Amino acid sequence: MMQFGPKWLVVSGFAALFSICAKSWAEPPADARKELNPDASRIEALLKEQEAAWNKGDLEGFMQGYWKSRDLTFYSGRNIERGWDATYERYKKRYKSDGKEMGTLTFSDLVIDRIADDAYLVRGRWKLKLSSSNPDGLYTLIVKKKPEGWRIVHDHTSIGEPEKKQP
Amino acid sequence: MMQFGPKWLVVSGFAALFSICAKSWAEPPADARKELNPDASRIEALLKEQEAAWNKGDLEGFMQGYWKSRDLTFYSGRNIERGWDATYERYKKRYKSDGKEMGTLTFSDLVIDRIADDAYLVRGRWKLKLSSSNPDGLYTLIVKKKPEGWRIVHDHTSIGEPEKKQP
Repeated sequence: MMQFGPKWLVVSGFAALFSICAKSWAEPPADARKELNPDASRIEALLKEQEAAWNKGDLEGFMQGYWKSRDLTFYSGRNIERGWDATYERYKKRYKSDGKEMGTLTFSDLVIDRIADDAYLVRGRWKLKLSSSNPDGLYTLIVKKKPEGWRIVHDHTSIGEPEKKQP
Repeated sequence: MMQFGPKWLVVSGFAALFSICAKSWAEPPADARKELNPDASRIEALLKEQEAAWNKGDLEGFMQGYWKSRDLTFYSGRNIERGWDATYERYKKRYKSDGKEMGTLTFSDLVIDRIADDAYLVRGRWKLKLSSSNPDGLYTLIVKKKPEGWRIVHDHTSIGEPEKKQP
């Protein structure tokens, strides 16, 4: 049987500590994240479906990710939309009306954190490729478990300032 | 003793129903909101303290509302700040550096909703009165109960487009 003296304990202790710290500075191990956020993959799928619907030009499909309720809230800039209908109208006006286009939407930098058994905080980045500009920004979502499935009940979206063009 | 016949029951039933519906279409009765959101007054106080600190030019006091952790996140436009220190630096750069001013901050349209025993979703509007402009926008906060008290753990802030000046 091997003998482990105090020196070995100190060295291996530091090694373990370093390993733990190095990981926590990067991100929690995948297993830990999964245990903490058991519904993360379902919520990620919801956003993937939204992205796919958008990129097929299917705005109504995209809207299925939102809670179909008058209590849905959509915040952007200084504007508050209340309810699924108002949120849909906003999207139609901006992306489906004359002279508008939906372009190509990409979500990235997704962070999904459980707040309660039935509620998650979801943060991420959005990018839109349009023919004349490429706006991008951030979103914060509250996603809740509803009888019909996981749905976005609050969306706060911000847009970055347009990149300055070379003079 | 008065006798209450079936007619009275129907009439008073409708009256009660009308009264309940009329209220719920406006907003939940104060008592119900208080029961649903038992910590709302403490969270409101936190924001009042932030506002007061800001308006005294006390940026460090304002920062006390935020969770003093490297896991605090501050989202605005397309920028993500991670951690209390980075968030403080952002504020210092924008409002306390040469040629900058803090101005007068007003919060309004506050909506406070419990998500879990230890977590609230807080939404509202901010306005800043500066000498040369009056920017305004919206915020979404996640406020959590920490050993040191209720603290903002995530802030997503958006700004409205500058008002177009009269030509």
